[in-house]
Amino acid sequence: MDQTTARPETQHQSVTFAEGLTLDCGRHLGSLTIAYRTYGTLNPAKSNAILICHALTGDQYVAETNPETGKPGWWEQVVGPGRPVDTEKFFVICTNVLGGCMGTTGPRSQHDEHAGQPWGTDFPPVTINDMVRAQKRFIDHLEIGRLFAVVGGSMGGMQVLAWAALYPARVFAAVPVAAAAYHSAQNIAFHEIGRQAIAADPDFWAGRYWEHGVTPERGLAVARMTAHITYVSEAALTRKFGRKLQDTAQISALGDRFEVESYLQYQGSSFVRRFDANSYLTITRAMDLFDLSADYGGVLPSAFAGTKTRFLLVSFDSDWLFPTEQSRAIARALNHVAANVSFVEIKSDKGHDAFLLDEPDFHRTLRGFLAGCAEHAGLS
Amino acid sequence: MDQTTARPETQHQSVTFAEGLTLDCGRHLGSLTIAYRTYGTLNPAKSNAILICHALTGDQYVAETNPETGKPGWWEQVVGPGRPVDTEKFFVICTNVLGGCMGTTGPRSQHDEHAGQPWGTDFPPVTINDMVRAQKRFIDHLEIGRLFAVVGGSMGGMQVLAWAALYPARVFAAVPVAAAAYHSAQNIAFHEIGRQAIAADPDFWAGRYWEHGVTPERGLAVARMTAHITYVSEAALTRKFGRKLQDTAQISALGDRFEVESYLQYQGSSFVRRFDANSYLTITRAMDLFDLSADYGGVLPSAFAGTKTRFLLVSFDSDWLFPTEQSRAIARALNHVAANVSFVEIKSDKGHDAFLLDEPDFHRTLRGFLAGCAEHAGLS
Repeated sequence: MDQTTARPETQHQSVTFAEGLTLDCGRHLGSLTIAYRTYGTLNPAKSNAILICHALTGDQYVAETNPETGKPGWWEQVVGPGRPVDTEKFFVICTNVLGGCMGTTGPRSQHDEHAGQPWGTDFPPVTINDMVRAQKRFIDHLEIGRLFAVVGGSMGGMQVLAWAALYPARVFAAVPVAAAAYHSAQNIAFHEIGRQAIAADPDFWAGRYWEHGVTPERGLAVARMTAHITYVSEAALTRKFGRKLQDTAQISALGDRFEVESYLQYQGSSFVRRFDANSYLTITRAMDLFDLSADYGGVLPSAFAGTKTRFLLVSFDSDWLFPTEQSRAIARALNHVAANVSFVEIKSDKGHDAFLLDEPDFHRTLRGFLAGCAEHAGLS
Repeated sequence: MDQTTARPETQHQSVTFAEGLTLDCGRHLGSLTIAYRTYGTLNPAKSNAILICHALTGDQYVAETNPETGKPGWWEQVVGPGRPVDTEKFFVICTNVLGGCMGTTGPRSQHDEHAGQPWGTDFPPVTINDMVRAQKRFIDHLEIGRLFAVVGGSMGGMQVLAWAALYPARVFAAVPVAAAAYHSAQNIAFHEIGRQAIAADPDFWAGRYWEHGVTPERGLAVARMTAHITYVSEAALTRKFGRKLQDTAQISALGDRFEVESYLQYQGSSFVRRFDANSYLTITRAMDLFDLSADYGGVLPSAFAGTKTRFLLVSFDSDWLFPTEQSRAIARALNHVAANVSFVEIKSDKGHDAFLLDEPDFHRTLRGFLAGCAEHAGLS
């Protein structure tokens, strides 16, 4: 069943499930392709698999250069030989999320009903639960009964929580990092700025930009800039740029006066070359819709009732997008059902982005937690 | 010399100074018009005048409905008969800032060199100091030697600080509210999102939108949305909207799913009907350039050396755009030069916007401070 997607630019390793997938919105995707990468070796008992869940703009290339974008793996500090998620001990799996644009079924995939056309804005809205159901289809395909661990940060952490709630028997250990059990009003508002900027770009063409041979680059750049500011702390932004003027700066209303501005513009422009606008709309919407307790009558502990999964919750004290308080709320819910939970707030002044960066305390914590769990699981 | 500007829509009360104004950037404005409003009566000694400085999107209509926009005065809770800034005791003055779009010289005014054309993006960059020098020209015109007080919030507070630094002998009392002595990297970054969104709007036409009979409404709306989110606290946003779904909501990637989104869209769209995009660019840039200590060798206390002005600094504990810490830094600088300074952090969960809203503690504090100063000034 393995095959590669037919995108002309890059061949992403993938598998297609002809039976498709029924979504939370009630619609049915006629065909489901999951693009993935794996690292390390699955042991004969299939008991050493770790699923990594990526964030909004991540992809399956967690520990190696993405051949389409040329960017290094997004979590090479965490996943690899001798790393906290050690690929010499564990079999690491990462899939591109449903709705993404790196080979998994999403707005850029073939439309079910209009041959030769991409879905574009016709792509159905998806939820975090839908993403997790698609991942589970792939884990079933690998005939892995129980994942040793599911690990992810930000939207990846939302997926970890959904995995633990939907399939508790399939998850031995769960590590939601810099995550939350619901997307806050402020987070939704920041996403909305990005969506409005994309919709306002004349090159968006109501989502049918591919018909015009363009992409809404300027809108997408504004969206990325907005997101980027929310990912870093004030301290990190100040340390990196402060109020440094650029050498060539001249006073003008629209000129690049401060370094922070040209950096943000660069971040925006490198992003638009690699990301599909309709995927961005689809995935931000999935995050906004995430509210784990809503599926359990508004009672968060019910999401974890009877769970045997071991949890490690990690937050960063300067993260104002997914503040510690939100991880603490999850820890309280887990305590309420007498779950096995560790909760660590890491001191860092790097903001939400810290989960992607060189944070030795975080990496030590993760390594130690996985080692302890491996012992309990009879892996070591 | 008094006259009204020739804008067809609305006649704003104004005065024009034919000698113009030389700006920090070195350029000279050939003519300077200041649009203003006053409330109350100037006493014979001209000792009861309070200058109110407005914020980024404010105007001179501080205590009455703006005839152009139909919006109520932006500080009616603070300025008026019997209000904390009591127009039965004080003569209150408010001018539209230099670079603004409500009658004072700005990008929408006649170009110095091209008759019949507005300045547009040719309008020179201005600074907060330039704004204050323009205001001082107007105060001189009124033959007011010493202002009893200068009061303002946010960018208005920056102007208060600049007044106190540039013309200490002309300011008996100064009240910077929710302000800072410099614009932070994060604040600059949020402004940059707005500027990029405006520049990305095809209706911007590189700033010459009036030639095409359009305005960059979509870009300006995104800019306003971004600013608006920074003005409110997470708690205020949650209390107002939380995750409430709209009645008519259907799941779709670009639909109005959450109330917060349609509110933000409304905020954006009402704003674009009343504000000039080039003014927005000019004024945000002036804020970004503000760094009071830079004019004094990087030593903030030097800005206030020898000052006899009485200061009241006010911050709000949920304001993350101009956090308390920044007011505290100003208080420390003032203490360093043994200035007369009161500093009050008001408990509020309304964020930066609190300075414009119903905050009885703030209003009591302001009323009490002004009463004490009036006694010392021999006014009562």
